[in-house]
Amino acid sequence: MIFSSSLLENAVTEFAKLPGIGKKTALRLVLHLIKQDPGEVSRFSEIIAKMRNEIKFCIRCHNISDNTLCNICSNTMRKRELLCVVENIRDVIAIESTQQFNGVYHVLGGIISPLDGIGPDQLTIDDLVKRLSEEEIEEIIFALSPTIQGDTTIYYISKKISANGAGGVSQPVKITTIARGIAFGGELEYTDEMTLAKSISNRIPVENFMIPGH
Amino acid sequence: MIFSSSLLENAVTEFAKLPGIGKKTALRLVLHLIKQDPGEVSRFSEIIAKMRNEIKFCIRCHNISDNTLCNICSNTMRKRELLCVVENIRDVIAIESTQQFNGVYHVLGGIISPLDGIGPDQLTIDDLVKRLSEEEIEEIIFALSPTIQGDTTIYYISKKISANGAGGVSQPVKITTIARGIAFGGELEYTDEMTLAKSISNRIPVENFMIPGH
Repeated sequence: MIFSSSLLENAVTEFAKLPGIGKKTALRLVLHLIKQDPGEVSRFSEIIAKMRNEIKFCIRCHNISDNTLCNICSNTMRKRELLCVVENIRDVIAIESTQQFNGVYHVLGGIISPLDGIGPDQLTIDDLVKRLSEEEIEEIIFALSPTIQGDTTIYYISKKISANGAGGVSQPVKITTIARGIAFGGELEYTDEMTLAKSISNRIPVENFMIPGH
Repeated sequence: MIFSSSLLENAVTEFAKLPGIGKKTALRLVLHLIKQDPGEVSRFSEIIAKMRNEIKFCIRCHNISDNTLCNICSNTMRKRELLCVVENIRDVIAIESTQQFNGVYHVLGGIISPLDGIGPDQLTIDDLVKRLSEEEIEEIIFALSPTIQGDTTIYYISKKISANGAGGVSQPVKITTIARGIAFGGELEYTDEMTLAKSISNRIPVENFMIPGH
């Protein structure tokens, strides 16, 4: 692509550095911004710069945060004894958006995946174990990807927690994982064998069965 | 989507205002920026703001420009007597990227489209007619969309130019339009009848036929 304006070219190049944005899309975005009010575009760029400069990670749960402690950790209405362990910030947003969880989180920053070079030390597992000895946590809910890596991570952390618990440092904690089964609206015949098998072995009594929103 | 950080939420909202960017894509872009160096993100936001504040439109051809006159109009190597009329800036970039055109441009800012409320007065047609009387233009090449609106615009402007020419203000000017036909690599059987008919009636002798890059 050949530009006759270097201002335009630089802006397109910057946008094209973003993931999933090619040169053509970048040009479309920049031409859109050119049509907007200059004040509006200044506001856009200030908000982005401010976000990057001021954003923090919560010292307790490692969630993204405006302050030292995130809004969830500092909210006294949330159940501090219920801890949901997730892989990343995106998962916190997904679970928060369901409005069904009233506990707190712990963001691991990934899952154990030796092939990608991610071992337990790169994750916030030590911090999690430390939280268990310091806070009065009654239940840990693992909400990790339903993959071998996710299962490995759950296994590793559970082992570490029970080893720690055996040392007498913390109270016994209930460990659970989010239910795996057929997705709402999913077709039985297209479900893979592993999921179908798990959904049969983990079958639930009909009185616990609820249609969301009813 | 429920965010626990207002810095994050504001940034996502700003990105989601861009055309074709939904909330999920916006979140992906913002989380990407969070992983980048703060200096890198400041640079991104500064380049965008600078672009919007400093960008101009060339007073001669209405192309996007860093200065009062754009790089193409101020380039003495370009043939000032060959004028290509296009709909918008994107078309200038597309033609420039072919590196096959060595003339100058005139950006109309749209095409005549009564259904969209775009009449000749909203376009830079008067400026184009004025350029014809002031500059020594020998040929006008229309590179407009191959649609009824494009054809109407060509017809309207040609009429206006010849009416003006009849008044004795300017020299007679050659008017052409870019060739329409089967696209390179296109399949004959999937081409619409109109294009196929035009490509037969406008057939070219084989000696003019050239494979690009050979």
